[in-house]
Amino acid sequence: MEQVNGSSCYVDLLRKRVRVEEEEEEEEDDEKGGVDVGIMVSPSSLLPSTLRNGTIMSSNKFNYNGGKGSSKLSFAVSATVAASTPLVPHWYADMHPACPGEARLYEVEKVLFHGRSKYQELLVFESKEHGKVAILDGYIQLTETDEFAYQEMLTHLNLCSIPNPRKVLLIGGGDGGILREVSRHTSVEQIDIIELDQMIIDIYRKFFPDIAVGYEDPRVRVRIGDGVAFLKKVPQGTYDAIIVDAFADMGKDAVELNDEDLLLSIADALCPGGVVSTPAAGIWTKNFSNMAECIERCRRIFGGSVNYAWTTVPSYTHGGIGFMLCSKKGPEVDFKNPINPLGPRNLGVANRPPKFYNSEIHTAAFCLPSFAKKATGSEVV
Amino acid sequence: MEQVNGSSCYVDLLRKRVRVEEEEEEEEDDEKGGVDVGIMVSPSSLLPSTLRNGTIMSSNKFNYNGGKGSSKLSFAVSATVAASTPLVPHWYADMHPACPGEARLYEVEKVLFHGRSKYQELLVFESKEHGKVAILDGYIQLTETDEFAYQEMLTHLNLCSIPNPRKVLLIGGGDGGILREVSRHTSVEQIDIIELDQMIIDIYRKFFPDIAVGYEDPRVRVRIGDGVAFLKKVPQGTYDAIIVDAFADMGKDAVELNDEDLLLSIADALCPGGVVSTPAAGIWTKNFSNMAECIERCRRIFGGSVNYAWTTVPSYTHGGIGFMLCSKKGPEVDFKNPINPLGPRNLGVANRPPKFYNSEIHTAAFCLPSFAKKATGSEVV
Repeated sequence: MEQVNGSSCYVDLLRKRVRVEEEEEEEEDDEKGGVDVGIMVSPSSLLPSTLRNGTIMSSNKFNYNGGKGSSKLSFAVSATVAASTPLVPHWYADMHPACPGEARLYEVEKVLFHGRSKYQELLVFESKEHGKVAILDGYIQLTETDEFAYQEMLTHLNLCSIPNPRKVLLIGGGDGGILREVSRHTSVEQIDIIELDQMIIDIYRKFFPDIAVGYEDPRVRVRIGDGVAFLKKVPQGTYDAIIVDAFADMGKDAVELNDEDLLLSIADALCPGGVVSTPAAGIWTKNFSNMAECIERCRRIFGGSVNYAWTTVPSYTHGGIGFMLCSKKGPEVDFKNPINPLGPRNLGVANRPPKFYNSEIHTAAFCLPSFAKKATGSEVV
Repeated sequence: MEQVNGSSCYVDLLRKRVRVEEEEEEEEDDEKGGVDVGIMVSPSSLLPSTLRNGTIMSSNKFNYNGGKGSSKLSFAVSATVAASTPLVPHWYADMHPACPGEARLYEVEKVLFHGRSKYQELLVFESKEHGKVAILDGYIQLTETDEFAYQEMLTHLNLCSIPNPRKVLLIGGGDGGILREVSRHTSVEQIDIIELDQMIIDIYRKFFPDIAVGYEDPRVRVRIGDGVAFLKKVPQGTYDAIIVDAFADMGKDAVELNDEDLLLSIADALCPGGVVSTPAAGIWTKNFSNMAECIERCRRIFGGSVNYAWTTVPSYTHGGIGFMLCSKKGPEVDFKNPINPLGPRNLGVANRPPKFYNSEIHTAAFCLPSFAKKATGSEVV
């Protein structure tokens, strides 16, 4: 480097402050660990009992970022209110184990619902700038301002990759957003949803009509129950497409993708050449380096194409999320090149065009940064 | 919708709490607006004088998210410490006007530098999980864990789109990261950088050696001064490529792209078919709807190809950032299909392969979600 011209002139405020502090008496109170009155966490069981009458919420629990419904009972709640948790009155704090040392705070206008079923705890608030926000057991489920990115991609990366989907199963997804997106596909004759928790359906219908509108499609058949148990009773080869929008343990990333029993049940329920889509860890998450192993497992179990995709969803950890796309052994599926295009005239019950999905963004979702290519076992050239 | 089976059983905690509160006396202190002792903001001028000896920082200022150096003096500081700002001891709060009602908090391990030049205020801290973090006048500049995404894309979307870049100008970018990326290109003979503030160079060299390594390239010539004044003296058609990594007013989005005088100066300095890249508003920002107008202006001024691209950078607002790519009238440039590939053997002074950029992610960066296609004036089919 050749420096043509330069002069340096600045004051180091840190050193200046250190000098000032050395000259002054120590009189600062250490307030670290103090929890403000008026703070509530979700789930509320994590809140110290002295604070349970608070009216404004923050969360010290971790947001999974994938799957908006529930397929099983087991929501392990192991976190406690740590001294370092950034609890702030009038803001909701979203934290995630895949993204430690960081918290996303949303300004809260009003709590609309806070309830607990026998399975889980749901919190709905009106945020200042992100529309209504839903938190399930302390994990952010969606915000109204960006939910469509996740719902559209999880649905259409799947259904646009096969020529003529007729029978579709949704596991979880009780909010109805995936149903809304499936409804855009005119070839579909039957849309089954298996959701664990009636509370999810009721509360989304009440507070999120533009999402729960998916239930208005007459092809939808709702079943309340455990997704895994349901799958085990499904006759082999029933579905052309299965969409998983639920996680058994939302504290871990992509846990279904490590659950061989569940994957085998899904594979059994798919017809040859049938397709499943699930959320998966985002490319920036700490455990993304295991993705190649996960892809290999899916290849072994499904026997067809397996590809990882990703997209932007600002309210999810690191501002994005991943998807796993797998096809059952049979007619070949090329996920990267959609053969069943979806356009602005595919309104379905949404009665508006897709906001996010198009064929270009479909293909682009499979293009990964070099570090992520390596982690998925692809060569970087 | 046909419901096959269902039962609803949950308790509305909100209603329960309202009842409890009605029965109890009002004894809650309203602590909204209280500012904790031990809080510091960046820039420090925004901090109430009573708190200036605090040791842990948060920011009530807004993070621009684009451009890491500085080309002009004018950093308007209009924000004040609002009652609703989420200030938390031991966490740095990043907020942005393009993303109101939201704050990103980073856990702070140690403040490494906090200084002020005659132009601006720079804060460097060691974060708990994001490596070192640099904040310029209250705007996040970069974190060590994701800086490469921005630096690689801003550089290589530009230089990989033209066949044989020889003379390159960097405006701003005093941290050295763009220089590091330019150095991977063996065709380049001369790398000029015009950076306003010597403090930026000195402090990045001290605390971010893996970024400031860009200065080690012997092709680099450093000039300290105002970028716009420098451009006006450059002979017409001097540069094959110009990279803008600075914003005159970091409180507004993509201000350079509205500054016709600056754009005309850049166009003059480019050779026919030469290329400029600048950061631009991300697709999720509120003012993204003006992007079509901005693209039209660039088309008029540069007379060649103009394309908007975007990518993921978790620490930037909404987890991403945009880029504007423009070519000067002359030999045609097809930004979407790179003709000057960069691979893992292009080490430059970085002495390691690119972590993010590859030809696939280059092309994918120009594929937009439908709502963003509309905002850039493209048809959605």
